[in-house]
Amino acid sequence: MQVGIIMGSTSDWPTMKHAADMLDKFGIAYETKVVSAHRTPQLLADYASSAASRGVKVIIAGAGGAAHLPGMAAAFTSLPVLGVPVQSKALKGLDSLLSIVQMPKGVAVGTLAIGDAGAANAGLLAAQILATHSPELMTKIDAFRQAQTDMVLSQPDPSQVSL
Amino acid sequence: MQVGIIMGSTSDWPTMKHAADMLDKFGIAYETKVVSAHRTPQLLADYASSAASRGVKVIIAGAGGAAHLPGMAAAFTSLPVLGVPVQSKALKGLDSLLSIVQMPKGVAVGTLAIGDAGAANAGLLAAQILATHSPELMTKIDAFRQAQTDMVLSQPDPSQVSL
Amino acid sequence: MQVGIIMGSTSDWPTMKHAADMLDKFGIAYETKVVSAHRTPQLLADYASSAASRGVKVIIAGAGGAAHLPGMAAAFTSLPVLGVPVQSKALKGLDSLLSIVQMPKGVAVGTLAIGDAGAANAGLLAAQILATHSPELMTKIDAFRQAQTDMVLSQPDPSQVSL
Amino acid sequence: MQVGIIMGSTSDWPTMKHAADMLDKFGIAYETKVVSAHRTPQLLADYASSAASRGVKVIIAGAGGAAHLPGMAAAFTSLPVLGVPVQSKALKGLDSLLSIVQMPKGVAVGTLAIGDAGAANAGLLAAQILATHSPELMTKIDAFRQAQTDMVLSQPDPSQVSL
Amino acid sequence: MQVGIIMGSTSDWPTMKHAADMLDKFGIAYETKVVSAHRTPQLLADYASSAASRGVKVIIAGAGGAAHLPGMAAAFTSLPVLGVPVQSKALKGLDSLLSIVQMPKGVAVGTLAIGDAGAANAGLLAAQILATHSPELMTKIDAFRQAQTDMVLSQPDPSQVSL
Amino acid sequence: MQVGIIMGSTSDWPTMKHAADMLDKFGIAYETKVVSAHRTPQLLADYASSAASRGVKVIIAGAGGAAHLPGMAAAFTSLPVLGVPVQSKALKGLDSLLSIVQMPKGVAVGTLAIGDAGAANAGLLAAQILATHSPELMTKIDAFRQAQTDMVLSQPDPSQVSL
Amino acid sequence: MQVGIIMGSTSDWPTMKHAADMLDKFGIAYETKVVSAHRTPQLLADYASSAASRGVKVIIAGAGGAAHLPGMAAAFTSLPVLGVPVQSKALKGLDSLLSIVQMPKGVAVGTLAIGDAGAANAGLLAAQILATHSPELMTKIDAFRQAQTDMVLSQPDPSQVSL
Amino acid sequence: MQVGIIMGSTSDWPTMKHAADMLDKFGIAYETKVVSAHRTPQLLADYASSAASRGVKVIIAGAGGAAHLPGMAAAFTSLPVLGVPVQSKALKGLDSLLSIVQMPKGVAVGTLAIGDAGAANAGLLAAQILATHSPELMTKIDAFRQAQTDMVLSQPDPSQVSL
Repeated sequence: MQVGIIMGSTSDWPTMKHAADMLDKFGIAYETKVVSAHRTPQLLADYASSAASRGVKVIIAGAGGAAHLPGMAAAFTSLPVLGVPVQSKALKGLDSLLSIVQMPKGVAVGTLAIGDAGAANAGLLAAQILATHSPELMTKIDAFRQAQTDMVLSQPDPSQVSL
Repeated sequence: MQVGIIMGSTSDWPTMKHAADMLDKFGIAYETKVVSAHRTPQLLADYASSAASRGVKVIIAGAGGAAHLPGMAAAFTSLPVLGVPVQSKALKGLDSLLSIVQMPKGVAVGTLAIGDAGAANAGLLAAQILATHSPELMTKIDAFRQAQTDMVLSQPDPSQVSL
Repeated sequence: MQVGIIMGSTSDWPTMKHAADMLDKFGIAYETKVVSAHRTPQLLADYASSAASRGVKVIIAGAGGAAHLPGMAAAFTSLPVLGVPVQSKALKGLDSLLSIVQMPKGVAVGTLAIGDAGAANAGLLAAQILATHSPELMTKIDAFRQAQTDMVLSQPDPSQVSL
Repeated sequence: MQVGIIMGSTSDWPTMKHAADMLDKFGIAYETKVVSAHRTPQLLADYASSAASRGVKVIIAGAGGAAHLPGMAAAFTSLPVLGVPVQSKALKGLDSLLSIVQMPKGVAVGTLAIGDAGAANAGLLAAQILATHSPELMTKIDAFRQAQTDMVLSQPDPSQVSL
Repeated sequence: MQVGIIMGSTSDWPTMKHAADMLDKFGIAYETKVVSAHRTPQLLADYASSAASRGVKVIIAGAGGAAHLPGMAAAFTSLPVLGVPVQSKALKGLDSLLSIVQMPKGVAVGTLAIGDAGAANAGLLAAQILATHSPELMTKIDAFRQAQTDMVLSQPDPSQVSL
Repeated sequence: MQVGIIMGSTSDWPTMKHAADMLDKFGIAYETKVVSAHRTPQLLADYASSAASRGVKVIIAGAGGAAHLPGMAAAFTSLPVLGVPVQSKALKGLDSLLSIVQMPKGVAVGTLAIGDAGAANAGLLAAQILATHSPELMTKIDAFRQAQTDMVLSQPDPSQVSL
Repeated sequence: MQVGIIMGSTSDWPTMKHAADMLDKFGIAYETKVVSAHRTPQLLADYASSAASRGVKVIIAGAGGAAHLPGMAAAFTSLPVLGVPVQSKALKGLDSLLSIVQMPKGVAVGTLAIGDAGAANAGLLAAQILATHSPELMTKIDAFRQAQTDMVLSQPDPSQVSL
Repeated sequence: MQVGIIMGSTSDWPTMKHAADMLDKFGIAYETKVVSAHRTPQLLADYASSAASRGVKVIIAGAGGAAHLPGMAAAFTSLPVLGVPVQSKALKGLDSLLSIVQMPKGVAVGTLAIGDAGAANAGLLAAQILATHSPELMTKIDAFRQAQTDMVLSQPDPSQVSL
C-alpha cells in the first residue's frame, strides 16, 4: 500500500478514479477511501496520522468547493500530500482550486489541475515521487511518457483525424 | 465566556480585533486564541469539541488564503460558527472568502465580509444570535443600531463634512 | 413560527426549499414568503420590521444576481439574518455571493454557499442558533450530525459504490 | 433641484464629488445627501419616494461593497436611477459593480464605471437625460464634448507632452 | 421614433427583443437596427451622429464579447446611451459587461445587467428617461411598477406555487 | 507553405479548423500539425526552429488550459506567432487566455479571442501580416471585409430576420 | 513611417513608450499619436482609414478600461493591428484585456500582455511582422533575441546577483 | 545535489529564496539557476533533461505571468516538478497560478501557493518527497513541524502579542 487516495464524498469518485487508473498503469498498490474533512474529521485525523505507519508514502486527496481535505490531511502527516480540485457546480472548481493551493507557509499541498486531468496527474506525480528511489519504476514512467509522445507523433495531421 | 474568537495566526489579530471590539460594546464575555487548522490541528479539534462544555455559545473564526479554520471548527462542534475571510496578500481575500463560504451541505459556516468590516460584523452577528434569547441584549443591539442610524442622519450633507 | 424563509421570487423556491427541508428534519416551525427587495420594498420593510414581534428568531433570505434581499432585511431588524446566494444564469452566483456577503460594518448577514448546499446549511445554521438555548434541539442536531458522519463511515470504499 | 446625489457614507464623497463637479459645469442644480441603505433604510425609502415630488428628475447613487443603495433607490421611485460603484478595499470595486448592475427585470439601474470616472459620467449622463428635453442644455453638453475633443486634438504627440 | 435599439449582430436579437417588448408595453415608438461597431463602423458613425436629428431621444445598444457598440455610439452623440451586455459563450458576458461599463471620464454609457433582464431594463430605463418630461408616460410606468408589485404580493407563499 | 497551424491535441482541431478555413478563403498555403508543448517538446523545438527555413512566415498556435504552445513556439523562432486560447472545460478558456497572453518582455505572442472566433481571426491576422507585402492579397482582404460589411448592411432590421 | 503607435490618452504614454523604445532598437520609423476612440472618434476613423496610404504597415494601439481603440482601429483598416491593454486603476487591466482580445470573428486584434511588457512586445511583434519580408530586419531581431538569451546565460546563479 | 531550484528571471529570486531557505533548514543540497523558458528554451531542455543524471531528485520551478517554466521543465524530465506561481504585477499571480496548475493529463506539476509561502512550501514538499525514503530526513521534518506547532501553542492569546 504505497499510495492513499482519499476524497470527500463518493460523488468525487468519477474524478478520482483517474488517479487510481494511473497508478494501475504502473502497478502501484493503493487504497481508496471516502474521508470527509467536514463530516468525519476524526477519521481524517486518524487516517492521515497513521498513514506513514501503514506504509503509505504519498497521499492523494480530492475535494470540491470549500475543499479542506488535502490541507487538513497535510496538517496531520509529514508525508507528501497531493491535492485534486474537483470541479464544483457553481464556480466550476475555481473555489476548489483556491481552497487547496493557497496553503500558508509551513504546511504544503502539491496541487494539480481542476478535474479529471488533475486526478490523473496526481496519480502520475505520486508515481514520479516513488520513482525517485526506484529505478525500476522510473523506467516504467519513462516508457509511459515515451508512449504518450509516440501517440502524438503518430497523428501528425489533425485535419486527417476523424474526431 | 459566551463567544470564542479564534484565528489562524497572530497576524490575523489586527483584523479579528474588530470582532472583539464589537463584543466589548455589548458587554459580552469572550476569549481570544490562536488556533491554526494547519499547524495545530489537534488543538483545533480539542478547542471546537470542548467549546460547548465551556459555555461558549458561538465561535468566530478568522483565517486567510486557504482558510480552513472556520469550516474545520464547524466540523468539530454543533455550535454556530461564523467565518471571517482575512484579506490575503495576492488575491485580496477572494481565496479566503471562497475557502470559507463554499461549505458542503451538512456543515455550515455563516460567512461575513472580507477584512475588518467582516470581523466587526461577526461580533455583531454573534451578539444578535445571543440576543435571540436575551431581551436585555437585544435592547442593547437595537440601541447600537439606532445610534448608528443617528450618526448617519446627523451628517446629512457629505459636501460639508471634512474628511 | 421561529424561522422566516424569504426569497426574491418564486423561481428561487427550488433552491430555498432545501432550507425548509432542513428545518423540517428538526421539527422547527417556519414560514415561507416571496418578498422582493426591488418589487415589494415596502413589504420587505414591513416583514423584517415586524418579524421579531411575530416570534421569529432567525430570518433566512435567498436571492440571486444583485441580491439585495438579505442585506435589506438585516437593515430593518436586529434579528440574525442568514443569506443564501441563489445561482444566477450568467455569472453562476458569483454576483449573488458578493452582493450578499460584502456588507459594510454595522449591519451583518451570515452568508452561506451558493445554491442548494447553501440553502440547506442556512436551515442548519438557523437550527444551531436556536439550539444555543435549547438543549433538546442541540441533541437533535448532534444526532443529525452523527448520522451524517455514520453515513460516510458506512461507505468507506468509493470504488465499491455504484453511483 | 433637478438631480439628487446620494451615497452610502461620507467616505464615498471624494468619489461622488466628481458627479457634482460635472453637474456644476452645466449649471444643473443638485442636492447631495448621505443615505445609507443599510443604516438608514427608512430615510432611503422616504428620500426616493419623495424625490419626484420635490422636482428631482434623476437620482445618482454611489456605494461600495454590497452596494444596495442604487437598486433600493430604484425600488422606491420611477425616476431614472444611475449607479456608481465605489472602489472597495479588498475587491477593488468588482463587488460594488456586480451588486449594482445585475438588477432583475423590472427595476433598472443605469450603471457607470467603477470609481471617479464613473461618478463624473453619472453627472454627465444625468445632464444628457435632462437635455433630452432642453435644447439649451444639449447645446452646453455638445460644447463640453467638443472642448474635450479639442483638448485631445491639441496634444497630438504624446511623446512631446510632459507628464 | 423616440428610441433607437441597435445591436452588433442579428444573433443579439433574442436578447435585445426584451428591450423592444418593454417599450411596446408603454407605447413608445422605436426602431431596431443591426449596426456593427467592427463590421460597419461608418454606419455606426452615421447612425449615432444623425439620431438626434431624426428625433431619437435615447439609444439602446447591445453587444457581446469585446462589446464596443454602446461606447462608440456614445462617442458620436450627446444623446443618452444605454448599454446591454449580451451573454457571451466562453466568459458568460463578463467580457461584455466590462467592455461596456468601464468607460473613461467624459463619455458615458448607462449599463444594464447581462442578458435578457438587462435588455428589458434598458427598455424600462429609456421609458423612465422619456417620462422625466411626460407625466402621462410616468403614470404608465408607475402602473407597470404597481402591477409588478401586485403580482409578487398575489403569490405570497412560494411553497404553494407550482413551478 | 506560408503559415503553420499547430495545436496541442487533435481535440483542438474543431476550434483551429476555423483558422484553416479563413486561410482557404484567401488561397494561402498552410500546414496543420499536432505539436504538444508538454508531450512532444522536442518536436516543438524542431518545428519552430525550422519553420522559417521551410518558408513559413507566420505560426498560428492553439492550446487550452495551461496553454504553453504559443509562447514556447515563440521562444524557438523569430517569426510572428499568433496564439489562440482554446476554450477549456472548467475555466472556459480564461486559463488558456492568461497562459498565452501574459508573456514577458522580449518574447511576443499576438493573442486572439477564446475559441472559434479567435481561431478564425488568427487566420485573418496571418493573412493581414502576409498582405503587408502583397498588394494582391491585401485586395482580397479588403474584399472580404467589404463583403462582411455588406452582409450586415443587407440585414438592417433584426426583428425581420428569422433566426 | 512603417508603424503607427496610437493611444487613448497622454496618460498611456509611459506604458506605450516601451513600444517606441523597442522599435528604436531595430531602427524602425514610427509615429506616435493620441487618438481617443471615445473623444475623437472621427480622428480615429481618419487615422486608421488613411494609415495604409501613408505607408504604415502595422498599427499598435494601447488603451485601458473599456479599451475600444485597438478594435475600432481594426474596424477601419485591413492593416494588422496589435492591441496593448493598459493597466487600469480598479481592475488592474483585466477590463482592458478582455475589451481588446475578445473581438468577434471577422475583425482581428493581436493582443499583447497587460502593461509595459505588452507594449514592448507590441513593438517587437510589429518588427517581426515587418521582418517577414526583410531579411535584414530579421537578422537584427535574431541578434536581439540572442543578446537577450546571452544576458540570461551570463547570470546563471540568481543567489549571486545583487538585486 | 538533490534539488534543483530554477526560475525565469533574477527578479524571481526574492520569492524563490524562500525555497532555498527551507531546504537549508533540512541540510538538503540544492542548486539555484536562472532558466528562462522563453529566453533560454534550449537551456531549459538541457537542464531538465540532464537533471536526473546529475543526481537531482526534485525540481522546483518558479515563474510569473504566462508562467511556462514549471510545465516545460516537466515536459523534459520524469522527475517530480514543483511549481511556484510568482506574484505578477497586474493580475497578482492569478495568471501565474493558472498557467502552472492547469496542466493537461500526462505531464504533471505539483503547484504551490502564489508567492513567498508557495516558494517556502515547495522547499518543504521537496524535503517531504526526499524523506519518503530517508527516515532521518523524515525525523527532521517531523521536528520542524512540531516546532512550528509549538510556536503557535506558545502564543495562545493574540491580544497579548505585540505585532
